[in-house]
Amino acid sequence: MKIYNQTQIMGAMDMKVAASRIAEGFIAYSQGRVQVPPVQNFTFEQANGDCCIKSAWVEGSKTFTVKISTGFYDNPANGLASNDGLMLVLSAQTGQPQVLLQDEGWLTCIRTALAGRIAAERLAPSVISGIGIIGTGVQARMQLEQLMPLTDCRRLIVWGRSQAALDDYRQFAQSLGFEVTTTQDCEQVARNANLIVTTTPSRQALLQSAWIQPGTHITAVGADGGGKQELEAELVARADIIVVDSVYQCSQYGEVSHACKQGLVASERLIELGKLLYSQAKGRENDQQITLADLTGVAVQDAQISAYAMQACQEAFPGV
Amino acid sequence: MKIYNQTQIMGAMDMKVAASRIAEGFIAYSQGRVQVPPVQNFTFEQANGDCCIKSAWVEGSKTFTVKISTGFYDNPANGLASNDGLMLVLSAQTGQPQVLLQDEGWLTCIRTALAGRIAAERLAPSVISGIGIIGTGVQARMQLEQLMPLTDCRRLIVWGRSQAALDDYRQFAQSLGFEVTTTQDCEQVARNANLIVTTTPSRQALLQSAWIQPGTHITAVGADGGGKQELEAELVARADIIVVDSVYQCSQYGEVSHACKQGLVASERLIELGKLLYSQAKGRENDQQITLADLTGVAVQDAQISAYAMQACQEAFPGV
Repeated sequence: MKIYNQTQIMGAMDMKVAASRIAEGFIAYSQGRVQVPPVQNFTFEQANGDCCIKSAWVEGSKTFTVKISTGFYDNPANGLASNDGLMLVLSAQTGQPQVLLQDEGWLTCIRTALAGRIAAERLAPSVISGIGIIGTGVQARMQLEQLMPLTDCRRLIVWGRSQAALDDYRQFAQSLGFEVTTTQDCEQVARNANLIVTTTPSRQALLQSAWIQPGTHITAVGADGGGKQELEAELVARADIIVVDSVYQCSQYGEVSHACKQGLVASERLIELGKLLYSQAKGRENDQQITLADLTGVAVQDAQISAYAMQACQEAFPGV
Repeated sequence: MKIYNQTQIMGAMDMKVAASRIAEGFIAYSQGRVQVPPVQNFTFEQANGDCCIKSAWVEGSKTFTVKISTGFYDNPANGLASNDGLMLVLSAQTGQPQVLLQDEGWLTCIRTALAGRIAAERLAPSVISGIGIIGTGVQARMQLEQLMPLTDCRRLIVWGRSQAALDDYRQFAQSLGFEVTTTQDCEQVARNANLIVTTTPSRQALLQSAWIQPGTHITAVGADGGGKQELEAELVARADIIVVDSVYQCSQYGEVSHACKQGLVASERLIELGKLLYSQAKGRENDQQITLADLTGVAVQDAQISAYAMQACQEAFPGV
């Protein structure tokens, strides 16, 4: 079994190729060609930590993947990152472990950002006047980086709770060439951007329906578990097109679940991202529609990103 | 993260210590102190393979374990072993991966054999006149090895379907000092042994109730999934004491499930191994009782054996 670390993995991968692999994964998932066993979860109460184990196999592919992600929220006080993780890629032909990707959670971050890129590619308005980012963390950075190949727009407004975090984010975004406005008022983001990505673990809606301009596309990636919510349910209901990574999962949690449970959105309105990608249809019909992509994260993304990371690392580091 | 291979793991471990760790695990499990998320399963139809992912954390312990086991049954035709596997031990305090045990499935085999040893220690009759083994595979060998410290009896009768496999097993057992009889008739095992271990993946009962002598203890480890059966349901019902590794799991599959589903055994009769061990009571009351241990395999065994293997390897190979 070969082992690659985070630096090697980051150096070996081409994000355009990675995006196409993730897109293929969404299509396979929506076509029912992916084996996804139930997620395993642990809670470590005393250590303020948790662990989740996600596994998937795209039927017909040569490998399958087991991903272990941990979050231990007292780690930073001890000089350690909160999140850690690794992916194991095994042969679907012999069962033998092929590659251990010690990505420390990076692959999970990037596959989430790539899903945002794929959704925006299909759903963003034809003219992007401003990009809005809700949140200032790692995912807020990666989502911005992944939007850059899709648009020439370099006007950015970013929301955060902490001015220090906003200042850090401003530096980061300026180094990418953005003209940056920071704000602690979510409404300002909605008023000044028509491509918005929400990336926080909020448990209360941050964006209200009334603030959103016609023609806006919103990608929401924060609500990856029960109780989380970034968008007002009315905003979900108002969207002309609602795309989800998994109809099943988004009815359990994610932005859409709240609107469904309140009876504001019928499940027939949900379009699975893989179906949208497979249909080759443009997601939005005009530049007045509001579109939403609710991305809760599915294990097929892990299977696809790890298979590609393995291939890319083997090519980049043949001696390992 | 440190990595140890099968040879290192096998060399580092003391089986007596390992047995006590497994016993502690059974006790914790029966006391409800173990987090055991649902098992993940894959089926690879074209490759004639499967994979199962079991994870467990004994609450309060410093590590938790994720085990990946594969079985690809066409592998031998390509010069590969059918079974492979590894265990990952992670910190329950920081989430960081600690050790990768590339045991190739050996730890699963030995934790199963150690469960048999623990059950026999509590349930075997006071005088063992003959040991009977049903099956000739790896587990049939390991079970025999693990019984040796419990008894001076070196009379063995072994059953298998293939004379070649029986001849191989005879050589193996003779090298351990056993006087060996081989047979292709299960009744002969029952008639000539009062400590019997069944180790096959049979889907039809091999041992009939009428053949079993009073005072016999039977450990059954083969029926580790749906549809498997080594003992006639009437034999399970006839047992005076029925011990199971998991009441829940053995009501789903395992030897006991067949008898329960036929209404021959009430679930109140089942005694969980951890409860038996914790009670400090002797399992059998006299040398006329028939006792049964139905061991389907529980993830706490993996958590315990891997935590000990990690410790033993770190002590044996401090430089790794």
